[in-house]
Parts: sequence; C-alpha cells; structure tokens
Amino acid sequence: MAEKKTAKRNYLNRQQRRQQLLEAAATIVDEQGWPGLTMISLAERAEVSRQLVYQHFPAIDELLLETIKHLFGSLYQDSQADFNQQPNNIEQAVQAQHRHYHEDLSAGRVRALWTILFTPYNADEPIAKAARMIRRISADVPAAAIPGLVGEGLIDSQRRHIGFMIDMLFWGSYSLVSDGEMDKDSALELLLWMLKRFKSGDKAGLPPVSNKPAS
Amino acid sequence: MAEKKTAKRNYLNRQQRRQQLLEAAATIVDEQGWPGLTMISLAERAEVSRQLVYQHFPAIDELLLETIKHLFGSLYQDSQADFNQQPNNIEQAVQAQHRHYHEDLSAGRVRALWTILFTPYNADEPIAKAARMIRRISADVPAAAIPGLVGEGLIDSQRRHIGFMIDMLFWGSYSLVSDGEMDKDSALELLLWMLKRFKSGDKAGLPPVSNKPAS
Repeated sequence: MAEKKTAKRNYLNRQQRRQQLLEAAATIVDEQGWPGLTMISLAERAEVSRQLVYQHFPAIDELLLETIKHLFGSLYQDSQADFNQQPNNIEQAVQAQHRHYHEDLSAGRVRALWTILFTPYNADEPIAKAARMIRRISADVPAAAIPGLVGEGLIDSQRRHIGFMIDMLFWGSYSLVSDGEMDKDSALELLLWMLKRFKSGDKAGLPPVSNKPAS
Repeated sequence: MAEKKTAKRNYLNRQQRRQQLLEAAATIVDEQGWPGLTMISLAERAEVSRQLVYQHFPAIDELLLETIKHLFGSLYQDSQADFNQQPNNIEQAVQAQHRHYHEDLSAGRVRALWTILFTPYNADEPIAKAARMIRRISADVPAAAIPGLVGEGLIDSQRRHIGFMIDMLFWGSYSLVSDGEMDKDSALELLLWMLKRFKSGDKAGLPPVSNKPAS
C-alpha cells in the first residue's frame, strides 16, 4: 500500500503536488486548528519529505498564507460577488453570507476562519501576519455595498473601515448563535435590524424580540 | 534566597496564597498567552507544589475562570459603572473605554482579553467555556446604556444582545488601530460616528475622514 502511494506520487506534476499539499494542510487545520499546521506536520500528513514541502512553501509564513487562500479564497470571492452585484441591497448579501456560514460550511471550517480573523496583531508571529492580511480582505468584501448603506461621497479607506465594522457585526451574530444565546434565525433578524437601524436610525423602530434559545 | 522564599511562603494565609497564585497566573498569561497557563506552569512559576495549586483550583476550568476574574474583574466593573452612570450618554462611556484600553492597559493585557473573548465556542475545551462566560459578561457591560441608544421597551436579552454587538464594534475599532489601519483618534471617531448613525440613521450624515495611518 505504501509502495503504491509512493509510485503514484511520482506522477504528480508540480501543480498537482501543490494542490495535494494544500489539501493536506486544510485537513490539518480542520482537525487541529492553526497551531497544528507546521512544515513537519504537513510533510507527515502528505507522506512526503520535508524538503518537498519546503520546495513548495519556503517558509511557514507562505504556507499559512497559501493555506488561507486555499481554504477561503473562493468563499471570499463568492461573498464579494454577492455584495458587488447588489450594492444597494446589503441586507440580501448579508443574508446570503449568514446562510452560507451557518448551513453550507462545516463548523470546523468556520472556526478556522474565525480563529485566524481574530488572532491579535503581533508582528513576531507568522499567524498574526496572516491574520492581518485576512482582516484586510474581510474589510474589502462588503466595501462596495457601504455607500448603499450610508450614502455616497466616501473615500476608499472609509468604505473599507466601515466594511470591517459590518463584518464585526456579522461575526457578533455568528458568535451569539454558537454560544447558544440565540437561534440562527433570530441572529439574522438582529443583524438585519442593526443594519436597518444603521441606515435609517430611530426610524427603524425597535429590534425584533429574539431571546429564543438555540434549538 | 530559595530558603528565604520557602520560609516566607509558610506565613501566607489561604487568602494571601490564593492572591499570590493568581498574580503568578496573570504574569504567565501576560507573557505567554492563555495556552501557557497550566497547573504545572503555575506551580513552577509560583514556586509551590502542584498539590497546593490543586488545593486552590481543583481543575483547569476553575483556574482559567478565576484568572479571568482576577485579570478583568475590576476592568469590567469600571466599564459597567461608566455605562450605568450615564445610561443616556453611551458615547461618553465608549470614549472612556477607548482611552482606557489604548492608554491605561498594557498591550499584553488587552491581547489577553481579546484572545479569550474571541476564542470560538467548542464545548470540549476549558478555555472555550471561559470564553463564552466572558462574552456573556461583555454583553452585560453596555446593556444599561442600550435604551438610550435605541429606545425604551427592550427586554433584558435584547439589551444584552445589542450590547454584545456594540462591544464587537468597539473591538473592531481596536483592531483597526492595532493593525495600523488607523490612528487611535480616528478609530474613536469612527466608532462614535457608527453609534450616532445607529442612533439617528442617515440624519447622522457622512462619517469622518479617517484614513490617517497609525503614527
């Protein structure tokens, strides 16, 4: 069996090998979280030499970044497309995102994203650099829909900063659900109410009653 | 020197010993973060036997919870007092909190709070249980000021959930500063603008320009 695998490995070209390594890295992160992902654990999991891992990812920084892109690249692209397509309907994009995170993604995958997104910035650690990068991307995702929420005349950085704050609200609602404080429909209602309120202030009236415990 | 310390230790009563252990635990967390805090590392740092640590904290869950209370108890009480004293002036309480986190607390202490606040919920891990508890407390802190922000007629859980979302915005602004996206005055402006907007909607006008990089 081991021989067969070795034989098979020889047929992977560089691009296929890279994909195989990134898949293995993703599995490690899903199972053990980010601290589990190292050059050594990846070599072991993918059943290749450490040298081969280093050929593809010269340093842990690059391995982390490429694993993040592999795990969340298409997720962010989809979300960004949602926000870009209906810049005046941020509610719909947020709703799609909510459904996606609660229903389509595995809890382990969401936890992996959450963990890296909320790793505090500390220049010494590779994971913290990756965290800062993914926070920047997160700020960009809803940026196109921000003028529809608060009006025109914003400069780029304002859209990005407000986008980031909206993303924080999204994760707040996710957190309330995963902590068992609310069920996921109530959390979506709360999030949409906050956006409505943010758009039109006290004209938005009172928030929905949402003290149902999670089922 | 070691003998002198041993001699001195014998004079600590139960309450003093507990304080000494909690101080040592706080130092470990400030230096190494939460993963560094274990029964063994605490015994070593405090120069006591593991048995003695277990006498005060029968399990890691309790050690974590008590260390959190020791580290952040008075911080939360101060913040809560700020929000309680001026329930109709959430801006002022938020401003005090901003100053406190950016100027009075060490970066390591804020990072310790951040890390535990954003540890995702996963029932298996003691740190995750502690994280859920501290998120509950965080939701309570601004709860008294929520009616002043969005109106009367809210039930308790609504105030707490909205309080938690406001706390997320606070941490969003902190994060923008620590990532070097904004200086801390601009981040406070953004946060206050978001609250104003949340209070009065599009009547709040455009947000302040705040793309100054952190100094």
